[in-house]
Amino acid sequence: MANDTLTGNRVTAIPRQPVSHAGLINAVEGTLADFLASQIAALDAVDPSLGGFARTARDLVLAGGKRLRPTFAYWGWRGVAGPAADSEPLLPALGALELMHTFALVHDDLMDDSATRRGRPTAHRIFAGQHGARFGSSAAVLVGDLCLVWADQLLARTPMPPATLLEVRARYDRMRVEAVAGQYLDVLGETDPRSWSVERALLVARHKTASYTVQWPLDFGLALAAADEPEVAEAYRVYGITIGEAFQLRDDLLGVYGDPAVTGKPAGDDLRTGKPTALLMLARQMATPAQLSELDGAGIDRKAQVVAETGAPTRIEEMIRTRVAEGLTAVTSAPIDPEARGVLIELATVATQRPA
Amino acid sequence: MANDTLTGNRVTAIPRQPVSHAGLINAVEGTLADFLASQIAALDAVDPSLGGFARTARDLVLAGGKRLRPTFAYWGWRGVAGPAADSEPLLPALGALELMHTFALVHDDLMDDSATRRGRPTAHRIFAGQHGARFGSSAAVLVGDLCLVWADQLLARTPMPPATLLEVRARYDRMRVEAVAGQYLDVLGETDPRSWSVERALLVARHKTASYTVQWPLDFGLALAAADEPEVAEAYRVYGITIGEAFQLRDDLLGVYGDPAVTGKPAGDDLRTGKPTALLMLARQMATPAQLSELDGAGIDRKAQVVAETGAPTRIEEMIRTRVAEGLTAVTSAPIDPEARGVLIELATVATQRPA
Repeated sequence: MANDTLTGNRVTAIPRQPVSHAGLINAVEGTLADFLASQIAALDAVDPSLGGFARTARDLVLAGGKRLRPTFAYWGWRGVAGPAADSEPLLPALGALELMHTFALVHDDLMDDSATRRGRPTAHRIFAGQHGARFGSSAAVLVGDLCLVWADQLLARTPMPPATLLEVRARYDRMRVEAVAGQYLDVLGETDPRSWSVERALLVARHKTASYTVQWPLDFGLALAAADEPEVAEAYRVYGITIGEAFQLRDDLLGVYGDPAVTGKPAGDDLRTGKPTALLMLARQMATPAQLSELDGAGIDRKAQVVAETGAPTRIEEMIRTRVAEGLTAVTSAPIDPEARGVLIELATVATQRPA
Repeated sequence: MANDTLTGNRVTAIPRQPVSHAGLINAVEGTLADFLASQIAALDAVDPSLGGFARTARDLVLAGGKRLRPTFAYWGWRGVAGPAADSEPLLPALGALELMHTFALVHDDLMDDSATRRGRPTAHRIFAGQHGARFGSSAAVLVGDLCLVWADQLLARTPMPPATLLEVRARYDRMRVEAVAGQYLDVLGETDPRSWSVERALLVARHKTASYTVQWPLDFGLALAAADEPEVAEAYRVYGITIGEAFQLRDDLLGVYGDPAVTGKPAGDDLRTGKPTALLMLARQMATPAQLSELDGAGIDRKAQVVAETGAPTRIEEMIRTRVAEGLTAVTSAPIDPEARGVLIELATVATQRPA
């Protein structure tokens, strides 16, 4: 790790703390807080109820989370920009990724009817508490829409040449289409989980999570650096897909075995919704007839046990390890800034061995 | 009207037909069809179900409609660009407005649980027919999201200098925030229609419709012309607000008295959902106690009669006339291309005296 080599850089806004990334996250959150305050004031002036609506959106955005997308985008940029480049101009673009992520979470939680997120009530539940379930759903759709538009507005404040910004936007747009397409497949899979397959679950994982959480954020960072580096782009692509898939496979395990106190989501949430994740598809594939009938009929706690008994979680852990190894190989040989390389190696572990 | 002065212009893609605007609309729809075909092909290659999802989105976009937003944007541009300017480069930007409008319609119809739009089943009903109501709602949220992202992608294809495009985007973003805020107020009003007021209904009309249908599209067109014309901007602003409000007031009347065969929506839809439109708020304000109790308890057909008996529709017609007159005054004295002026005068009537 080269993260103690603090010489010769002008990065004052984002102290280099590769383990916690606390400095980076604080800087992004500060940018978000300032932006959101100005938006709230503008909407408050139109009608106080709009101010309240916008404040709910702000609370959702600032409620915490791992901030993985801005983190990957930052280090994607840093890999080619090097330690001497000023990171301050990046902050609006990094904040935009987080606003876009709030959009995705709010709409996903509505579709899954999830009750909590980051340990707090989800958007549609907050709004349902104000004026009933129907209003809750509608307002959640709208608060997601608002975050998506805000993301564009914040992205537009990135002080970079217009041509650079347009290239950044092109990648951002591809990321958004993949995220929507992946979520559509996710929702479709839940309509008929038994017709789904491990392969299709991995396709969803690749589109809904891998590209959206790791691959495109890194590529977005590369575009922010306005660098034409095909070798780096290819290394980021391989790292992004493999670490992103491993991230989703970890999510599958947490969706069944995660500790609600740590994940902020109810225990066994995926078993409740019947989401055909790679883990659960694999469990069905590996199950004995007796186990299969329990997977169809048992209560959530017992189902989680049966999934473990099929051996699927062990197989998923192997799949995670294989993918992480491939991603690390790609990034280890990439011609990038050594510190960024060290952090990406570390992030691969953080993203795929996390407890939440 | 100067629309027969066809000399000296290079506008080949958009024949000047100010009455039907058929040429303009055909050109925009051609651009949309080409763009959507390429998007469908890309998603089909990932998974055939994504191709089907995208085809449903395309059918919603190309299902017709008045195409008012591209039309206002075109004439907003034309007012300062003049008859000799090439309109071909505008087409992606005009198509983007229509994609954004599909996003808004799909999400609005879901929130209102409207069954039909443009004489066809609404998005959530189409998807519900495939895999049930829950899937219908989720897929409708996603198809709206997809159209919103597609709008950005198509906008990015507008062959104009990056600085112009960024300015166009800034106005587009403000338009989108106002549309979302207006829709939030609309949904909020339905939770407690009796606490609503004529004034608040007009605030909703201004944000949800006026700015989004007329004012911002005109301003968007002005930005496409890259013209710094404060006098024109002010005239467009006044025209946009007044004609836009009149448009919404006409919509209120059509929402109660429109012919389903012409509007493509069920008869008395606003009475069914209890939407607190300016018309219905005014009817409550003008109603006798006996009428008020019928407005609360009677069937839809009788309610429509009672609204008429209060005199509210006559008052709304007066409000439309006042606004149209103010809008026409603004545009008549504006320093713009005479043909554009003539068309904007005509559009004021088309938009506010329409049967659907």
